Amino acid sequence: MKIGLLGHGTIGGGVDQIIGGIEGMEVKSVVSLEVDDSFRDRHVNGIDDIVNDPEIDTVVEVMGGVEPAFTFVSKAMKAGKNLVTANKALVAAHYEDLIRLSEENGVSFRATASAGGSIPWLVNLSRAKRADTILELAGIMNGTTNFILSKMKNEGADFDETLREAQALGFAEADPSADIDGADIRRKLNISANIAYDVQIPEDSIDTFGIRNVTSQDIRNAAALGRTLKLAGFSGKTEDGIFAYVEPVLLPSEDVMAYIPSNYNLIRYRGAYAGIQSYVGEGAGRYPTAYNVVEDLFDILAGEKHFYTVTAVPAVPDNTAPVHRYYVRTSVITPGLLEMAEDRQDGYVITKPVSVRGMHSFIREQLIRDPAAFIAGIPD
Amino acid sequence: MKIGLLGHGTIGGGVDQIIGGIEGMEVKSVVSLEVDDSFRDRHVNGIDDIVNDPEIDTVVEVMGGVEPAFTFVSKAMKAGKNLVTANKALVAAHYEDLIRLSEENGVSFRATASAGGSIPWLVNLSRAKRADTILELAGIMNGTTNFILSKMKNEGADFDETLREAQALGFAEADPSADIDGADIRRKLNISANIAYDVQIPEDSIDTFGIRNVTSQDIRNAAALGRTLKLAGFSGKTEDGIFAYVEPVLLPSEDVMAYIPSNYNLIRYRGAYAGIQSYVGEGAGRYPTAYNVVEDLFDILAGEKHFYTVTAVPAVPDNTAPVHRYYVRTSVITPGLLEMAEDRQDGYVITKPVSVRGMHSFIREQLIRDPAAFIAGIPD
Repeated sequence: MKIGLLGHGTIGGGVDQIIGGIEGMEVKSVVSLEVDDSFRDRHVNGIDDIVNDPEIDTVVEVMGGVEPAFTFVSKAMKAGKNLVTANKALVAAHYEDLIRLSEENGVSFRATASAGGSIPWLVNLSRAKRADTILELAGIMNGTTNFILSKMKNEGADFDETLREAQALGFAEADPSADIDGADIRRKLNISANIAYDVQIPEDSIDTFGIRNVTSQDIRNAAALGRTLKLAGFSGKTEDGIFAYVEPVLLPSEDVMAYIPSNYNLIRYRGAYAGIQSYVGEGAGRYPTAYNVVEDLFDILAGEKHFYTVTAVPAVPDNTAPVHRYYVRTSVITPGLLEMAEDRQDGYVITKPVSVRGMHSFIREQLIRDPAAFIAGIPD
Repeated sequence: MKIGLLGHGTIGGGVDQIIGGIEGMEVKSVVSLEVDDSFRDRHVNGIDDIVNDPEIDTVVEVMGGVEPAFTFVSKAMKAGKNLVTANKALVAAHYEDLIRLSEENGVSFRATASAGGSIPWLVNLSRAKRADTILELAGIMNGTTNFILSKMKNEGADFDETLREAQALGFAEADPSADIDGADIRRKLNISANIAYDVQIPEDSIDTFGIRNVTSQDIRNAAALGRTLKLAGFSGKTEDGIFAYVEPVLLPSEDVMAYIPSNYNLIRYRGAYAGIQSYVGEGAGRYPTAYNVVEDLFDILAGEKHFYTVTAVPAVPDNTAPVHRYYVRTSVITPGLLEMAEDRQDGYVITKPVSVRGMHSFIREQLIRDPAAFIAGIPD
């Protein structure tokens, strides 16, 4: 297997290093903005040098971002190269295009590292579907927000301070919005739900509320309720369709998900036969992520073609189906909120069971009245 | 795929039912001590009717026990049938024979459900080895003992009472020794370590201490130390060899394993690249276990031949390498124990770090002096 590597940063360097120790795999050519001695002799001028090299059968894309990644991998797949990518932005944005390119050109397309980092989540999800029906899936799919919430809980620290520390440690980007506003989880949930239910959900149709507004008082309120605050994605299949949303959640003490340490992810599904299957591992990092890229390469060597699924029926989530109580902390109590309220505490309200769609509509409006408002789902 | 099913009890009935809904798979013949209407028309007189049926390509063995299971599956493999089994006693006892039969006859041998029930543990372990080195593995691999310890912790109940309740609920056998003395975990650990390190460890060479002697006071002592008592298996690879042991363990509060609810298993490994990967799911039960049997059948259909590993170098665990503190509760304080002691509390001793081999030798002798003595490892 001769590989063209697109990107030689944190993940790409890890992939290059792991492959260096594997017989029968070789990184022949590298496209990278920056060049160092470890691959100078394999550095080529651009994607065309890889596309036009008949010896290269597989392209590994670890550049990140939607463009030029999509242009590059499209060219490569059209030239008959298999694709392995760890790029969730690419996969979420071009899900249907990539599946079609894979089918049309008879090449493999795998993206296990794009959701869950080191966790063999997508590949196990696709294996599970052979014998089982996936009814639900959920997960802590973002290490940055899990780091922030864990630290706020353990040390009583406030959000801004903890975010700055996460940035200093390299756990959070200079612009942290994709993490703290939930877009990163939304992409991974999107890819997971697409595979689990053979659908294609538009990324922006997933109701999403992040932890930008969380305060240390929210964390203390959660503890007083005997619960732990996490940010997670949820999706499921009902008789009427699919639901999918990202929101802060107050987990009960009997839920293992409440104990996932800061740098780990937990992703789980409920199958009709297998019951609840949970996977816990590092959700990011050089070698953990590179590891799953290399596993995808082994699957291609073993003869895996196509994507995890070949069908992708367009679907829009219907979030009226999932219904649960919410914690709502806002300084502006409206008649609409009072109508939903089951219990009113000092500084926050616990609602009656309401639909996810209803609450996400409410909070979008409420943020105009109270930009500091915060909500968290309360599972039964 | 036409299947001969050996055993039609809890698991076998589940396998039959799941396969009934899958196109391209058929349970053609069933060998079973007891017959009911659901398979009367497919019931045959014995193993020879399956062995001599050229249409049957695969045998599923879910009878349990070592014999006659081994005789039956040997005949079937020699006749060119693939084998899928959920039978840990069979696999642990005849590991090398079964791999040899698989190789000699060019048939597949898979046993995913034999360790972890619903958890795709063995198959993921074997997948991981392609790109990674397994350094350690560990797990709560027995639902019965986890049920007992969880209930004792949550309700302050004593051991005998809880065991009786587990038996009444069908979670524990009439003769509970295999569960409470750790033999069940030992078998699953044995199979896991064999696959992880390409070795073949004799079952009785794994130091094993169960929870027969645990008291509600031990559970309270654990809580006072800020820890949770679980029974688990541990194995690892050092420069000098392999270690493997089963013992009660006082887990710290930051270890997710401490929170695994009663009917679940958690099994994990640490890979050089992937880091710690944990799998959580139901470790037993009709459909969860049958599910993994059917997954094995899909892997055979997809072209998987052989076992998860073809090498099985004989190895005896060296448990002098792993070293940690122990909780020792005994009414007979000996000079040997005092020498190991770091801290002496009311009713128990915390030792200095000692080798697993040393402590297991000590407790075997100590049980003669004090048949009620109890130990638990204390990981750092």
